[in-house]
Amino acid sequence: MVNEFANTAGVTFPQGFKAAGVKAGIKKSGNLDVAVIYTEKEAVVAGTFTQNAVAAAPVYASKAVVATGTAHAIVANAGCANACTGEQGDKDAKKTQKIAAQALGCDPLDVIVASTGVIGVNLPMDKMEKGVKEAIKELSDNGSSNASHAIMTTDTHPKTAALEITLGGKKVRFGVIAKGSGMIQPNMATMLCFITTDAAIDGKLAQKALSEVVNTSFNMISIDGDMSTNDMVIVMANGAAGNEKITTENEDYETFKAALDKLCKALAQEIADDGEGATKFLTIHVTGTKSFADAKTIGMSVAKSPLVKTAFFGADPNWGRVICAVGYAGVPMNPQNVVVKFGDIPVYVHGVGAEHDAEALANVMAQHDITISIDMGEGEEEATVWTCDFSYEYVKINGEYHT
Amino acid sequence: MVNEFANTAGVTFPQGFKAAGVKAGIKKSGNLDVAVIYTEKEAVVAGTFTQNAVAAAPVYASKAVVATGTAHAIVANAGCANACTGEQGDKDAKKTQKIAAQALGCDPLDVIVASTGVIGVNLPMDKMEKGVKEAIKELSDNGSSNASHAIMTTDTHPKTAALEITLGGKKVRFGVIAKGSGMIQPNMATMLCFITTDAAIDGKLAQKALSEVVNTSFNMISIDGDMSTNDMVIVMANGAAGNEKITTENEDYETFKAALDKLCKALAQEIADDGEGATKFLTIHVTGTKSFADAKTIGMSVAKSPLVKTAFFGADPNWGRVICAVGYAGVPMNPQNVVVKFGDIPVYVHGVGAEHDAEALANVMAQHDITISIDMGEGEEEATVWTCDFSYEYVKINGEYHT
Repeated sequence: MVNEFANTAGVTFPQGFKAAGVKAGIKKSGNLDVAVIYTEKEAVVAGTFTQNAVAAAPVYASKAVVATGTAHAIVANAGCANACTGEQGDKDAKKTQKIAAQALGCDPLDVIVASTGVIGVNLPMDKMEKGVKEAIKELSDNGSSNASHAIMTTDTHPKTAALEITLGGKKVRFGVIAKGSGMIQPNMATMLCFITTDAAIDGKLAQKALSEVVNTSFNMISIDGDMSTNDMVIVMANGAAGNEKITTENEDYETFKAALDKLCKALAQEIADDGEGATKFLTIHVTGTKSFADAKTIGMSVAKSPLVKTAFFGADPNWGRVICAVGYAGVPMNPQNVVVKFGDIPVYVHGVGAEHDAEALANVMAQHDITISIDMGEGEEEATVWTCDFSYEYVKINGEYHT
Repeated sequence: MVNEFANTAGVTFPQGFKAAGVKAGIKKSGNLDVAVIYTEKEAVVAGTFTQNAVAAAPVYASKAVVATGTAHAIVANAGCANACTGEQGDKDAKKTQKIAAQALGCDPLDVIVASTGVIGVNLPMDKMEKGVKEAIKELSDNGSSNASHAIMTTDTHPKTAALEITLGGKKVRFGVIAKGSGMIQPNMATMLCFITTDAAIDGKLAQKALSEVVNTSFNMISIDGDMSTNDMVIVMANGAAGNEKITTENEDYETFKAALDKLCKALAQEIADDGEGATKFLTIHVTGTKSFADAKTIGMSVAKSPLVKTAFFGADPNWGRVICAVGYAGVPMNPQNVVVKFGDIPVYVHGVGAEHDAEALANVMAQHDITISIDMGEGEEEATVWTCDFSYEYVKINGEYHT
């Protein structure tokens, strides 16, 4: 898939935001591993976080920041998740906030913290402190690219996008960096996604827009069905664009939300496309259900099936595995009503396999981007889920990734 | 793991049962692919079947047999699942029953039919008819081994066991053949498991015992989280042992059920151990929950996690992935109460990683059989789930298996 909003300006595209990424020595590879995003002008902040009962220390620390409604900075590191680290983990997350706050001249509760990497290892605070301070010194208008690299783990490329809209005659910009790759089936957020905007908007409305948008973007992807301990999506809106502040759900709010939706969908798709070991990008479009929830449940059941995912890796048009995963999804159904298509080609129609042109189907299966359409014939609702295939490389990455 | 009841006498171990397996040309490999099990003396029959909403034609045909309460024969084929085959599939399943009934001199509703293999392809009825007739001619006291081979698909070895108990002074025997390997996460039964016994027991009590036993054996394994369209477990009890017929839930009933339980657990474990591409056999023992259902949910969440399964394939003691899968299982929990052990070695204790002897842990991870113990510290209930690891071979088998 192509991210049509790809833009290396990323989180520094909106006015008033600076960023940096530095090498602090936390990643074994020695690559960039500490990122800072900063707005001198106070931003309203909104966030969605993992629903895993075993959430990491930075998740709790950042929830406390979101609860205050405003923030100035995001500090993120890769190479260590600071998860399952008990009291020490909480102390380390809070100390990171303090270190950044002191260097930036803001309050510790103005600093979102995020970590990704190995679970169960304490943050190396000497390296972290040095890295955060260095990154803050290096903050600049063109630091987003380094920041996007610094949050990567097994991602094969950084994920970054930007978008400009007009609100009440003013140019308003959005920027985003994200990372994904493994342990991805967010129940409410993906691994890490940081969105900046210079829009002026009430904090509660920013949160409302984010929560709605996340439900149809990041919450609709699955790479391996595993929900991380560290997922978060953060929006910081600093109002530097000078648009009339959005304080009600007016037309400007809808325009703001639509822009957020475009960016989140593009990034969610890019994360699925860059799933660990992925060789295919699969769009599962479920229609004709009685509710969005039913359609999502069916789509996720197909997206999570290792048999479906390995079949697509093998370019095998094995629709039997797709209809099997539909059948055990737990949504009442009648096979007689169902139509499954790969690309434009019907492969299962009303209970049985459909006659089809084998060559045309082989051609669909050979593509990198493949759409699986499932019409349940039960109602008017629908949902779209994005995933990737399951390859040898997934097993290799996760059999060798070391604790 | 070792199946302590392994016995090639299998389904012909109990008195009055004959079996055969022949090559009918349904499998592309040309291997044995049609099995028949027969008792001249009428048997009571009990069965549990897949809960997949897209169930195969033989599932419906066999449910009708179980509804009559008695049966004389089981006819099974591998190489074609007769699933998603619509009306033609139903006709073919019924025709198979008729062919066997005519050759055996019984009623079509005395013939259980079962199929495993590719979904969406019609049964080649000419081959099937020839194979069934030939198998019936070859029925013998030592045909169980051929029958056990004839139901294999990607299994690496046949699964067969037998057991003798005493009921009211009479020797009573049980025999079983089963197959598993892929598309395995039965919600009520595994792919195919046929149990014979010469016990005399009321049909409803046989069904009750089977249903209970399946819940703690076959329903507790997951290889890939996929629930097949064709799963079934069948018990035929012909009473040839001459024990006083079991008509109430007396001591004999408990003895009967305990024997069934031993066999079903042994076969369920063997199926998990022989999962597609498996190199490890994992026992996940969850204790300290408020209910069996909670413990099972947590165990299954861990058993289904591709990240956990690939870590064990890589012999990586990545307890972070285990506690992560516990955390997203959806059961309310407090990480502070939880203890996770690999083998006898605590790796996660009350919210944080535990100090441990790295060499001893590496030794546990190098074993073929590994127990993951998870004490939730919330209650007195428990459950055990069995699974296997996720290897390159799994991807290979399922990327190349062709429709």
